Amino acid sequence: EFATLDHHRSLRHRMGEVVYGEGKTAAQCVAIAERLAATGTPVLVTRLDAERSAALRQHFPEGRENRSARTFIANAPAVKGSSSGEPFVAIIAAGTSDLAVAEEAAEVCVASETAFERICDVGVAGLHRLLHKIPEIQQASALVVVAGMEGALPSVVAGLVGRPLFAVPTSVGYGASFGGLAALLAMLNSCAPGVTVANIDNGFSAAYAACNVAHL
Amino acid sequence: EFATLDHHRSLRHRMGEVVYGEGKTAAQCVAIAERLAATGTPVLVTRLDAERSAALRQHFPEGRENRSARTFIANAPAVKGSSSGEPFVAIIAAGTSDLAVAEEAAEVCVASETAFERICDVGVAGLHRLLHKIPEIQQASALVVVAGMEGALPSVVAGLVGRPLFAVPTSVGYGASFGGLAALLAMLNSCAPGVTVANIDNGFSAAYAACNVAHL
Amino acid sequence: EFATLDHHRSLRHRMGEVVYGEGKTAAQCVAIAERLAATGTPVLVTRLDAERSAALRQHFPEGRENRSARTFIANAPAVKGSSSGEPFVAIIAAGTSDLAVAEEAAEVCVASETAFERICDVGVAGLHRLLHKIPEIQQASALVVVAGMEGALPSVVAGLVGRPLFAVPTSVGYGASFGGLAALLAMLNSCAPGVTVANIDNGFSAAYAACNVAHL
Amino acid sequence: EFATLDHHRSLRHRMGEVVYGEGKTAAQCVAIAERLAATGTPVLVTRLDAERSAALRQHFPEGRENRSARTFIANAPAVKGSSSGEPFVAIIAAGTSDLAVAEEAAEVCVASETAFERICDVGVAGLHRLLHKIPEIQQASALVVVAGMEGALPSVVAGLVGRPLFAVPTSVGYGASFGGLAALLAMLNSCAPGVTVANIDNGFSAAYAACNVAHL
Amino acid sequence: EFATLDHHRSLRHRMGEVVYGEGKTAAQCVAIAERLAATGTPVLVTRLDAERSAALRQHFPEGRENRSARTFIANAPAVKGSSSGEPFVAIIAAGTSDLAVAEEAAEVCVASETAFERICDVGVAGLHRLLHKIPEIQQASALVVVAGMEGALPSVVAGLVGRPLFAVPTSVGYGASFGGLAALLAMLNSCAPGVTVANIDNGFSAAYAACNVAHL
Amino acid sequence: EFATLDHHRSLRHRMGEVVYGEGKTAAQCVAIAERLAATGTPVLVTRLDAERSAALRQHFPEGRENRSARTFIANAPAVKGSSSGEPFVAIIAAGTSDLAVAEEAAEVCVASETAFERICDVGVAGLHRLLHKIPEIQQASALVVVAGMEGALPSVVAGLVGRPLFAVPTSVGYGASFGGLAALLAMLNSCAPGVTVANIDNGFSAAYAACNVAHL
Amino acid sequence: EFATLDHHRSLRHRMGEVVYGEGKTAAQCVAIAERLAATGTPVLVTRLDAERSAALRQHFPEGRENRSARTFIANAPAVKGSSSGEPFVAIIAAGTSDLAVAEEAAEVCVASETAFERICDVGVAGLHRLLHKIPEIQQASALVVVAGMEGALPSVVAGLVGRPLFAVPTSVGYGASFGGLAALLAMLNSCAPGVTVANIDNGFSAAYAACNVAHL
Amino acid sequence: EFATLDHHRSLRHRMGEVVYGEGKTAAQCVAIAERLAATGTPVLVTRLDAERSAALRQHFPEGRENRSARTFIANAPAVKGSSSGEPFVAIIAAGTSDLAVAEEAAEVCVASETAFERICDVGVAGLHRLLHKIPEIQQASALVVVAGMEGALPSVVAGLVGRPLFAVPTSVGYGASFGGLAALLAMLNSCAPGVTVANIDNGFSAAYAACNVAHL
Ligand SMILES: Nc1ncnc2c1ncn2[C@@H]1O[C@H](COP(=O)(O)O)[C@@H](O)[C@H]1O
Ligand SMILES: Nc1ncnc2c1ncn2[C@@H]1O[C@H](COP(=O)(O)O)[C@@H](O)[C@H]1O
Ligand SMILES: Nc1ncnc2c1ncn2[C@@H]1O[C@H](COP(=O)(O)O)[C@@H](O)[C@H]1O
Ligand SMILES: Nc1ncnc2c1ncn2[C@@H]1O[C@H](COP(=O)(O)O)[C@@H](O)[C@H]1O
Ligand SMILES: [Mg+2]
Ligand SMILES: [Mg+2]
Ligand SMILES: [Mg+2]
Ligand SMILES: [Mg+2]
Ligand SMILES: [Mg+2]
Ligand SMILES: [Mg+2]
Ligand SMILES: [Mg+2]
Ligand SMILES: [Mg+2]
Repeated sequence: EFATLDHHRSLRHRMGEVVYGEGKTAAQCVAIAERLAATGTPVLVTRLDAERSAALRQHFPEGRENRSARTFIANAPAVKGSSSGEPFVAIIAAGTSDLAVAEEAAEVCVASETAFERICDVGVAGLHRLLHKIPEIQQASALVVVAGMEGALPSVVAGLVGRPLFAVPTSVGYGASFGGLAALLAMLNSCAPGVTVANIDNGFSAAYAACNVAHL
Repeated sequence: EFATLDHHRSLRHRMGEVVYGEGKTAAQCVAIAERLAATGTPVLVTRLDAERSAALRQHFPEGRENRSARTFIANAPAVKGSSSGEPFVAIIAAGTSDLAVAEEAAEVCVASETAFERICDVGVAGLHRLLHKIPEIQQASALVVVAGMEGALPSVVAGLVGRPLFAVPTSVGYGASFGGLAALLAMLNSCAPGVTVANIDNGFSAAYAACNVAHL
Repeated sequence: EFATLDHHRSLRHRMGEVVYGEGKTAAQCVAIAERLAATGTPVLVTRLDAERSAALRQHFPEGRENRSARTFIANAPAVKGSSSGEPFVAIIAAGTSDLAVAEEAAEVCVASETAFERICDVGVAGLHRLLHKIPEIQQASALVVVAGMEGALPSVVAGLVGRPLFAVPTSVGYGASFGGLAALLAMLNSCAPGVTVANIDNGFSAAYAACNVAHL
Repeated sequence: EFATLDHHRSLRHRMGEVVYGEGKTAAQCVAIAERLAATGTPVLVTRLDAERSAALRQHFPEGRENRSARTFIANAPAVKGSSSGEPFVAIIAAGTSDLAVAEEAAEVCVASETAFERICDVGVAGLHRLLHKIPEIQQASALVVVAGMEGALPSVVAGLVGRPLFAVPTSVGYGASFGGLAALLAMLNSCAPGVTVANIDNGFSAAYAACNVAHL
Repeated sequence: EFATLDHHRSLRHRMGEVVYGEGKTAAQCVAIAERLAATGTPVLVTRLDAERSAALRQHFPEGRENRSARTFIANAPAVKGSSSGEPFVAIIAAGTSDLAVAEEAAEVCVASETAFERICDVGVAGLHRLLHKIPEIQQASALVVVAGMEGALPSVVAGLVGRPLFAVPTSVGYGASFGGLAALLAMLNSCAPGVTVANIDNGFSAAYAACNVAHL
Repeated sequence: EFATLDHHRSLRHRMGEVVYGEGKTAAQCVAIAERLAATGTPVLVTRLDAERSAALRQHFPEGRENRSARTFIANAPAVKGSSSGEPFVAIIAAGTSDLAVAEEAAEVCVASETAFERICDVGVAGLHRLLHKIPEIQQASALVVVAGMEGALPSVVAGLVGRPLFAVPTSVGYGASFGGLAALLAMLNSCAPGVTVANIDNGFSAAYAACNVAHL
Repeated sequence: EFATLDHHRSLRHRMGEVVYGEGKTAAQCVAIAERLAATGTPVLVTRLDAERSAALRQHFPEGRENRSARTFIANAPAVKGSSSGEPFVAIIAAGTSDLAVAEEAAEVCVASETAFERICDVGVAGLHRLLHKIPEIQQASALVVVAGMEGALPSVVAGLVGRPLFAVPTSVGYGASFGGLAALLAMLNSCAPGVTVANIDNGFSAAYAACNVAHL
Repeated sequence: EFATLDHHRSLRHRMGEVVYGEGKTAAQCVAIAERLAATGTPVLVTRLDAERSAALRQHFPEGRENRSARTFIANAPAVKGSSSGEPFVAIIAAGTSDLAVAEEAAEVCVASETAFERICDVGVAGLHRLLHKIPEIQQASALVVVAGMEGALPSVVAGLVGRPLFAVPTSVGYGASFGGLAALLAMLNSCAPGVTVANIDNGFSAAYAACNVAHL
């Protein structure tokens, strides 16, 4: 046995368990969430379609549903913003179309009781929008930067703010974006040191990393 | 017959002919260049290795050799900068490693008697470097923007300057840049409207387009 | 602050703003368009499905709707052809199936008050069709060349006409066209100098570049 | 046993056997060629480097060596051109850099005693070069069309001449040609019906098909 | 003018015109077919969905509809098999799922008044099925070989029968067939000389080439 | 602790340890091999260049060196063929160029004291060569089938012989073989059930699996 | 004739025939299954949608339907577990979402009268789940290991258990899993020797191989 | 002006500047390093070949050269291990061949005065090696996990230790590893939440991120 492992304790302590909703029936989602929620810890369920989400809402009428993020949280903690005085995660999104991924990231913050702030529609083709937000972004403990198309935002942000930065490419774009591949490759090739990258559209995993850092 | 076509006249008038040096022997390069140069027009030879370049230098001792650009110009016109008062092309390069491609672009300007200015090492991870150059860039008639790695520079420049912009991805970068593919896809997916893209490392073709516009 | 930037003024002066319709609700499209249209400038909305397009039509009964192009223009200027005597953009499409992309390009011309002419169904497998149009094409100030399948049209046109040429690959074709990749690669590898390329199906961006040139 | 098969007899009758030189030692090449040549039929060896080619030349001093094509023919038949009055294959190449592949195709014609004619440097960016050759091409029984970069030549030729046409993409080009992939995909997506395609740089196989047709 | 070109005369003489149905409205399909059919020549329309096909059937009640092939022929000639004594095309398909592509090839034969024979379900994993058919296949003038999955059938057939062979990869297969890419690459890499390849699922083009050869 | 695991015992019992030679210095290779060989068990070292191989030969003058396979075996057991009466592995290779990979597979048999037989140059384009070998192949306990280019051989063999079959694609081929990708995809898409596939050129791993089966 | 081949006899003896349901009509599925089932041997039909499955159920009311696996077995043998005392196959799946592929593998065991055991939800990110099962897995004769996402499970299992192991990548995962490509490549590159790989989602073929081994 | 930005202050404070050595001449490397080193801060130069490294060594005889990592540090701080009592980074490498990338990561720790520990040769195919190291790894503040081939190590480590984990795929592997693509995709698809990924072979960037976290 190797039972003394900490198993993400620092973060899981706050967030409880996570259920990946895709490929499970509504009944399975409810059953698993019920079991995990019994102890009162938050339970985050991700990748939910309308039907599964409704089933959870019916079972946990107090739960927190976010249809844009496609998530549900049972035993949802209160939301905390940057004004809470706690270390917070800045979730920065390039365009309107990247919002769903940013929202998924936000719900991870909620579930793990991490303060966070959203900063949206600050794509690199209109740089002044981003520059006005830099002072705010510099207060954050960790950054989740979400962008589709050419995926340039993380490089620019990392050049301006020295915080741990987790980049998320989105599948937004058409033609030669090839389902997010263009943004993914761009982020992996960032000329700004220290940028690391999550899977396409995986706001969950990048936020998980950022919250982990914010709680250090 | 369809003999009245203009065949790039506006630009070729100035530039004369272009010889693609790769895959030709040194003797062939010299022979072709000699024939084309007979009328006194500039003759640009591109993609030259050391041996072929030396053969041209020996044959055209007055010629203009640029080893970084891997080009040679017989009957080379005088170089004109932005201070010439003529419409000029701005050649903007993200990093030191992109210089060879920028140099190839510069030689196209020389051969076509187009004024031009180089603006280098202004990658997006250190934005202040670029922002200081914006007033100068805004004076240009057309832009060639060269970048490797994540290829983000054209998007940022196009958001700041309303000039025709021709982007050139370079094969600079390692691992998941896949020989310039990352930068190429990024540029094709630019969220800044009007950015169009040349082949990887093809400074020649982008500069050809830019000079064409500068002479309109 | 870096407030003196021109921000695409030459072109935007005429075109006003552009709204990317995809990923926005009908209500958002209408609200954004309404705000931008208030000053009387043209407002182009792209990538509209039937529902969003209908919402705009209802709100702007005078607006210009193009279902093939999937666009809508509020405060639409009058259409100007090559007979207007103004510098014009030639929009050249290889086949019937490329028409939707050519139409999107056309609407950019309308919105930016740029004269334009359509030249369609002139694919390279029946060359006489194209050759008959060359005299007309030579009058244009800039070219948008749209083609799917093997994407050969830009190379042939660029060899015949010395105008700035912006190529648009389309996703038309099946099997090994891989959603437009074949045409995209072909255009990037054009042996005709000065051909630059927009994203797959992105008639918008190529026309934006061409209109920019036509207004120089 | 299924012994009555003809095994490419129509073509092999003339050509004898073919040896793929790559991955064999010089000694193996000589030994195999010697055995096959014993009966006096032509023996074509392909993909030869300088050392292997020299070994064959030394052993078969009467043989036909083509270093550009990287081939050797023992018991080489006389070369026959289109003026021989026999059905002939036209080998059409877009650029100087495609010549090695065209030469390999030519040697297949020699080895199979098929008349042939070379038509070179007729790329689509200078269409008049090709159009002048069309009357000659129309006399051919079958066509091998070789092109790199955007690979557009087969589509244009097939639109002008109704002969069986075998296209060969070459690895000529740089950056986004991806070793011939761009030309390969273009040819597979030809909008001209009846164009079929050989492997990248495989002049051998396309010429084999064309000679097969010429001897029908 | 270059008006003396033959434009595929040998084949078109028999087949009349071909209309690519995809991306055209039912009304357009009917209108174009009607115009072309006026002279009594066969008119083949390909890539038809149910609605467009029904529109043609209603307009040309005597026409020949093949829903599996997704084709329609107005002024359809009589079908001719190998027993007609004329040179014929053998259409060989590996599996049941490749039948639609084989059927499209067959309709090209019908429309061009070319005799043909179908040989199906002879995949390489059960070789005896193919070997029994070899004597019949050897009588053909040209072969169309259709296969999905690993695309091995053309190599095996070309090794047994010395006829011009046109290979068609199909998109049949799952997972790592990547929409026919596996079969396409296999066929392009055939170790049997003279195998040339059409686009994925493009039975039309391969049959066009085969009929062209059969009529030599 | 989970100390009771068998760790490939059945096979390792015979073969001892394996050292992957690539990326290790000659000194490291010798040192590791020496330590492992101390107990007298066979030690197989793979992926050796000339220098490393020579170092091992000098240190283990009794060792078994195979330069084609790029392997070395210290404490090498005697070679056993199919006539040994033991269960044996048949190593089947399509072409001469696949021999190096087949040889690597053979050395795995030697090192693991597994009887084996080589059957080479039986590519699918000349089927009779393979069919003559089928009775011999049917005696084997497991098959390693090595092929490059279109990678069709495993499908054909698996259709004729009901033995566990491990396919190895090789990087042999040019152009669109893309370094063995064509053969890899073909084998993964085999229409013969039960074919499983090793990495490109990985004769080691396929033979390891086959020997494992032969010793059951 | 080469009639003495064994044609997978060892396995087929038990399993009878297999019908690939995709691309066949319900009527065809029933007709083929009926013919094959007449002798009483088990008949496995794979890749069934709801409609085709229902048709089979209606025709063979005693048959065994597995909707998760999308299979049907006529003349289904009794299921045998590891407690049967016979050699058995262990089917190991990483996550809930991989279950459908694991179920297809299970039905192959049923149809071939091979004992088997399922071991599920043992992904590598929670290693203790797998380690608890190792003693059970070590009893198996052959392993089918099914995993999506990063496809790491086969490497870990192969390092712990010395049994023939057949890996199946699944298309589970999103973004950069590219339909199972990530898991496929991971498994092909396994650093554990002897891991061989089936096509994406192809539980059928891997289980076929495993059952073949179990019956040796 | 936006002059108050922190520019990675927390980390740069310690590390000083970084020079990317590739594509710079030896003279340029020395000149840049000299200028940056003047203030006494550490200067890290990466991606050095032997010649450039020697030039630096000659100029900075006190400097720290690491040929395996291909780095040089002028004004190198003392190395600190985990026994220093400071927060440390654990650098975990799967195999011997991944060591160069791990060494580059280590030098980043040195240059930034971050304590670190190396844990090597703990690939997933021999799990006990990793499990013995878990207690040590759990003491680290952040993890850099380096692996080639199937890239499975980060998933397994992340499942055992709840620390911020930065994964680096390496180009180690052959055939279908496609230069590190297999490991890259595996890591991006990790089923362990919070794993983020650096470019192929980019130990620098992952370590930069990890040091950034260690200094929080
Ligand atoms: N959106 C997501 N993306 C990636 N991993 C997730 C996501 N949601 C949940 N997970 C992980 O998936 C696992 C739960 O999977 P399951 O056991 O199938 O519910 C946990 O390890 C989660 O951390
Ligand atoms: N570096 C280059 N990249 C792309 N095209 C070029 C380059 N240099 C020359 N060309 C074009 O290549 C053609 C000359 O090729 P050639 O006849 O082979 O010398 C002309 O159309 C040039 O415009
Ligand atoms: N799910 C499956 N995946 C791959 N091959 C299969 C599958 N099901 C059946 N087969 C094979 O397909 C062949 C039957 O195909 P068919 O003649 O079209 O029914 C047999 O060789 C089977 O072994
Ligand atoms: N090995 C490396 N990989 C990626 N980026 C690096 C590397 N080494 C240095 N850099 C970054 O490259 C920049 C220095 O580039 P340069 O100005 O060309 O020397 C700095 O931002 C460094 O952080
Ligand atoms: Mg916006
Ligand atoms: Mg720099
Ligand atoms: Mg048309
Ligand atoms: Mg030329
Ligand atoms: Mg069948
Ligand atoms: Mg051979
Ligand atoms: Mg689970
Ligand atoms: Mg090791």
